[in-house]
Amino acid sequence: MRFQAPESLSEQIAQHLGQRIISGQLRPGERIQELKVAGDLDVSRGSVREALLILERRHLIEIFPRRGAVVSQLTPALVNSLYDIYIELLCMLGRKVLEQWSGPELTGVVASMTGIEQLIEQAGSDDADSTQAIIEAGFDVMRHAYRMVDNPFLEETLENFKPAISRTYYVALENFRGEIAQTRRFFTELGNAASAGDPVALELAIREFGEHQRRQVLSILETRDA
Amino acid sequence: MRFQAPESLSEQIAQHLGQRIISGQLRPGERIQELKVAGDLDVSRGSVREALLILERRHLIEIFPRRGAVVSQLTPALVNSLYDIYIELLCMLGRKVLEQWSGPELTGVVASMTGIEQLIEQAGSDDADSTQAIIEAGFDVMRHAYRMVDNPFLEETLENFKPAISRTYYVALENFRGEIAQTRRFFTELGNAASAGDPVALELAIREFGEHQRRQVLSILETRDA
Repeated sequence: MRFQAPESLSEQIAQHLGQRIISGQLRPGERIQELKVAGDLDVSRGSVREALLILERRHLIEIFPRRGAVVSQLTPALVNSLYDIYIELLCMLGRKVLEQWSGPELTGVVASMTGIEQLIEQAGSDDADSTQAIIEAGFDVMRHAYRMVDNPFLEETLENFKPAISRTYYVALENFRGEIAQTRRFFTELGNAASAGDPVALELAIREFGEHQRRQVLSILETRDA
Repeated sequence: MRFQAPESLSEQIAQHLGQRIISGQLRPGERIQELKVAGDLDVSRGSVREALLILERRHLIEIFPRRGAVVSQLTPALVNSLYDIYIELLCMLGRKVLEQWSGPELTGVVASMTGIEQLIEQAGSDDADSTQAIIEAGFDVMRHAYRMVDNPFLEETLENFKPAISRTYYVALENFRGEIAQTRRFFTELGNAASAGDPVALELAIREFGEHQRRQVLSILETRDA
């Protein structure tokens, strides 16, 4: 058993507000008022200000001098910018795994991907809950890769993009169709490329899946805005 | 003339402390005590806490639950991790410039590089001031590229790495020898690759220069620690 320090108050506030932004309860462009949040949650204004800095780092809000905090926009241009850098960093993570590890050492990460395939098998249907579980499982593979690569800057940067990526998934979640099959195919390809120590196939798999996710999100945004 | 809002108090504190970390006045591993900083600068403890979150985002400090803020370590392993992701993101920036722009539109960025070459020509000697000026000019080329690529996430991520990169330059600054010639060669190659719209040559130039800087910093760290 491992004892962990509880999250700081500002981190707890950040997670609470972050979840409301990711799930769309707080809308793009909506203002977040320090005083109102402090009153609603019965916390100090200082803690709220710290929470807002954490959310800005996670790309969920923007803070403007004098105007205060505003939920980040979710336009096609911003989704494209976000996926551009996220896919690039995922490819870097995959490349680094294969540069630093080979053969038997890769078994762990491949096993965690096999675990996901089984999860997908069990989920079977395209409902939101199982999609959510699969997204989480995908994030687990990333955590496994972080430990192998041991680059704290890459890990931190990717982790800071996850909330914004989760928000785009959330937009697309109820409209995801046939995603289970697509996701299973991705993890199979990723596992095969990792076992074979094939960096070209690994990057191709990551890129194709990332581009697929991007297209899904963009097409839903466009339908919704039309 | 453009009027700008003054930096927030927490941003001013962050810049003050950040400069002390970059220049080595605050040493790796040194604790930063909120109360002491608040007293020294005659500001509220809340403003200092916000400043520390900004410095954490810029990779200059780490904040631990209960232990508080500590200046980030500067070990060879961390320098390697930092340069790995920084070089990767610079290559992405360069690729995006060439993907989105071609021929005559590239003139601006090439011109700003020619400006640097002249600056280098004028500087001539290897003293710290002219090295500093050249580093700043290099950051100007990045700003130019940001405007062309228009990816706020890439810009923000690179900007957040700059202070930590500047800190490594600072370590190496007084030991940089023959850097002027090397830097001029880099900007010439970068300008040629950009004019020619040649993404392979562009990436090669960025990677070679980044690796050169990394080696310089590492060799000085190793000498100093020996």
